[in-house]
This record gives sequence, C-alpha cells and structure tokens, in this order.
Amino acid sequence: MTEDDALRAANTAYYDAFAARDAAAMARIWAEADVACVHPGWPPLFGREAVLASYREIFRNPQQADVERGAETLLCTGDEGRVVCVEKVGEAVLVATNWFRRAGGSWRLVHHQASPLSVAAATTTLH
Amino acid sequence: MTEDDALRAANTAYYDAFAARDAAAMARIWAEADVACVHPGWPPLFGREAVLASYREIFRNPQQADVERGAETLLCTGDEGRVVCVEKVGEAVLVATNWFRRAGGSWRLVHHQASPLSVAAATTTLH
Repeated sequence: MTEDDALRAANTAYYDAFAARDAAAMARIWAEADVACVHPGWPPLFGREAVLASYREIFRNPQQADVERGAETLLCTGDEGRVVCVEKVGEAVLVATNWFRRAGGSWRLVHHQASPLSVAAATTTLH
Repeated sequence: MTEDDALRAANTAYYDAFAARDAAAMARIWAEADVACVHPGWPPLFGREAVLASYREIFRNPQQADVERGAETLLCTGDEGRVVCVEKVGEAVLVATNWFRRAGGSWRLVHHQASPLSVAAATTTLH
C-alpha cells in the first residue's frame, strides 16, 4: 500500500464510521491529543473529549442526513497528510479538510473542518 | 520569543497583509509548496500560484470588507502549528484555521480555511 493509499483509506474509514453512526470507530480514527474540529456552522471544538462528544450528538440526531463524499485531493508531507474533499449532506455541498497525522504507523485524524460551498461554486464544482 | 509567540506572530502577519491588501507580503507568508486554501463559499484552491492569485483577486475587489480577527487558539506540535480563530468580515462571522509549517526557522502558511458560523453559534461565540 502506498503512502497515498494509506491516507485515502484513513479518510474512507472516517466516512464509513460516519455512515454507520459508529462512535467507537470514530474514537479510533481521531488522535489522542492535539485535535480540533469545525463542523459546518458550529464554533470550533478543541480536545478529544469535546470532538468525540460532538459526533455522538450528531449520530443521535435522527434528522442527520447521510454524507456522500467525492473529489478527494491528497496532500502528504512526511507524517502529515491532508485530504480535501467535497461532502454532499442532504441539500448542502461542503468542502471538508481532514488532516491526519501518522503515529506508530497509522494515520489518525487531528483536524476536521467542513465549510459550505456557495450555490454557484457548488454547481461549478459538481458539474 | 516562545514557540507560541512566533506562531502567533505569523498569524498576525497574515491578517496584517490582508488589511494592507499587500500581495507581496502574502506571497512571503505562504509556503512554497503543499498549500491549499478554502475561502468562504469558494471551491478549494491547490498550489501556490492559484492561492496567491485568489488573494490578488480579493485585494482588487473594492467591495471586500476588512477582516477583524479574535479568539485565537494555538495548537503546536513540532514543526506544525495551527491557529484557529474567529474572523468578522462585514456582517459575517467565520471560523478560520490557519495551518503553518516551520521550515528554516520560520512559520509559513500551508493551509487556510474559513467557514461561516451559524447565526446562533456566532451569537454564542462572540458574546
């Protein structure tokens, strides 16, 4: 498995955990320390406990739409790896950055930020 | 100067360059390679040339509001440093992540992403 394959697999694991509403898997994906998360519209969250609690809250929400991702771009430098991708969440189209750090041979998530695309940009980006 | 001071100064330099509409300063702030930028509502930009061109476009726009920042949180791990902060841009309130990488003793920007806060979250975050 190349470096990019491993990073892409880590990103896939994130979206698989989300799709399965699997808080335990999400806890394995996020790093132990130095984490931050900006959900769309939310104030920033810092620290593993706050971040994992936010996913538990999201997973409990019966109105939460599924997330479909696409258009992944990988940027990998040493033990830092970013995946920038597009998320479709219900009617919304977001740009997400998932920033992973490699430790002990595995990529763990240290930063997630998802921002809405403007309607015009979403149309251009997706078509 | 502590590590945090140097990182904070790099973040200040970014907002100073923005306030001065100084494209040359912005070019010094961004790293040479491995850069990505997500302006609010925009599709992601990759590569130094595309990112710097976007700032020249923003700086040329006479309607561009000034950016006032606050509530900085620093996360520093080795040669990677994040500043998560709040931006007020006209009526909008954004959460911005500025991710710097240290090379040759100086912090250079490798990632910027700004996402709008919801109105409810903006009210809570700022008051």
